[in-house]
Amino acid sequence: MNKIEHIGIAVKSLENSNELFSKLFGESHYKIEEVAREGVNTSFFKVGANKIELLEATNEDSPIAKFLDKKGEGIHHIAFDVTDIEAEIKRLKNEGFKVLNETPKKGADNKLVAFLHPKSSNGVLIELCQEIKK
Amino acid sequence: MNKIEHIGIAVKSLENSNELFSKLFGESHYKIEEVAREGVNTSFFKVGANKIELLEATNEDSPIAKFLDKKGEGIHHIAFDVTDIEAEIKRLKNEGFKVLNETPKKGADNKLVAFLHPKSSNGVLIELCQEIKK
Repeated sequence: MNKIEHIGIAVKSLENSNELFSKLFGESHYKIEEVAREGVNTSFFKVGANKIELLEATNEDSPIAKFLDKKGEGIHHIAFDVTDIEAEIKRLKNEGFKVLNETPKKGADNKLVAFLHPKSSNGVLIELCQEIKK
Repeated sequence: MNKIEHIGIAVKSLENSNELFSKLFGESHYKIEEVAREGVNTSFFKVGANKIELLEATNEDSPIAKFLDKKGEGIHHIAFDVTDIEAEIKRLKNEGFKVLNETPKKGADNKLVAFLHPKSSNGVLIELCQEIKK
């Protein structure tokens, strides 16, 4: 794993939280992107070579709506940048991690992504992500 | 803020979790450090230019013991690397963030640290940290 690619934070209102995190970083988000299939609106902030992704639910069935209901606003997942996501999925499965997406799927920000179930990783929802080459 | 310095993860057993995260990263922790004043034992893993800090409580009054009781194992805080922690504390206080340590304190891993209350930052416990120059 190459670095922390981003940290995903579940928020109730992207508009309010964009304002709050702009104050935190002294700099605005650099993009907003809807991932319709996941029922989320996202915004991204740069912090050096890392990113913060804010996640707002766009419908009641969104995983973010369920997370907010259960836990309230807060950190939702950590994403690690990997070079070969398919090899990492195989390696981690062999190590006993519960991989939620054995075939990586298209995520926000031009990435192939796969998640590890928090039950197999100390309560932490982990995302692997690999940049899609153009 | 320069980068994500580390993500702190609350764990029940440092020994078990060191093994788990070694499997995750394909690499062992590079140090263990007790912060007696905070009632925690910590271990650190490198992920590129970022770190993961595992936190185990050493007594019942430890903030980590309370976190585990309330929320179970999982992500505890995000720490951002800053160049001038005192200037950042002032700036963030002026922006309306609730700063828990107006005077930075000595943390693990040779750092001056200060925390922002999660209530003022979308449920996220944020640590500012500045490397102590030798």
